[in-house]
Amino acid sequence: MRTWLAILSIAVSMAVLQVEQVRAGRQDPTAGRSFVVNSIGRVQKTEGHTLLVLDAKYQPGLLGLDGFSHVYVFWWFDKNDTPQNRSTLQVHPRSDTRNPVTGVFATRSSVRPNLIALTLCKIVSTKDNVVEVEAIDADPGTPILDLKPFSPDIDSASPVRVPDWWAKPR
Amino acid sequence: MRTWLAILSIAVSMAVLQVEQVRAGRQDPTAGRSFVVNSIGRVQKTEGHTLLVLDAKYQPGLLGLDGFSHVYVFWWFDKNDTPQNRSTLQVHPRSDTRNPVTGVFATRSSVRPNLIALTLCKIVSTKDNVVEVEAIDADPGTPILDLKPFSPDIDSASPVRVPDWWAKPR
Repeated sequence: MRTWLAILSIAVSMAVLQVEQVRAGRQDPTAGRSFVVNSIGRVQKTEGHTLLVLDAKYQPGLLGLDGFSHVYVFWWFDKNDTPQNRSTLQVHPRSDTRNPVTGVFATRSSVRPNLIALTLCKIVSTKDNVVEVEAIDADPGTPILDLKPFSPDIDSASPVRVPDWWAKPR
Repeated sequence: MRTWLAILSIAVSMAVLQVEQVRAGRQDPTAGRSFVVNSIGRVQKTEGHTLLVLDAKYQPGLLGLDGFSHVYVFWWFDKNDTPQNRSTLQVHPRSDTRNPVTGVFATRSSVRPNLIALTLCKIVSTKDNVVEVEAIDADPGTPILDLKPFSPDIDSASPVRVPDWWAKPR
């Protein structure tokens, strides 16, 4: 019986340790490194307004955002969070079979190994824990991961080349 | 003794369940939603070349990236992955106390709740599982989370406003 107790205790310890390591984003030697990201808020759409509503505790992080005209919104393709979508590496861009099969890292596809989405948004206003933006291509309720201010000195490029399928009228 | 065994079994089950839930990125009702992101590769710098070396299994995801001139690189501020850095919500931008205290979501600070970094890079070449870029502000060994192609139609803005501290010479 003591042996069983010892085995069970070790099992508990290992499982708890695993939780802690996953939580802390420490190295998993068998599968590359994993990190945990937490939702900081949600997209809300109401009466013609598009709002980024941060959890109240993150409000201090918005100080000074009103000095910028545009913000990058990092959000999570939460509707696609399945092992299959996260292991898809090639797609027809825009789900249009006339577009050539393309690697997901060469598309903005909403299926990809890490379901991080990026949208550049025009800021309408910032108040308390809420940023109103002109528009975002994310559904209401979508989890927001990060906001970063946009500045052309580091965020623009010229000249730029894109493939034919991208430039085609949609 | 049977009671102890039962308690221990329940503890094991709960801990295992917790690992699974954290892994699957399921909702944690007490703390918003959490998601797991996995490194897809690493930054490598060697003899004047800056390389994004993807894990071999992600190579199919690069098909067609050579059609683009620029790529957004999403990487993890892995050197800052501590609870303290992830709970810092305000900083002096660029660690310069002459800059006003600013919310991290109004800076590109490397301390923030989710340690996602974004750099727009010019592509030099793409071959097998390696993308050579002109430069990146990430150290060798830095974990890469995602690559997305850049296109000015969705990724540029004009006119743009930034605060005085941003525009100041560094």
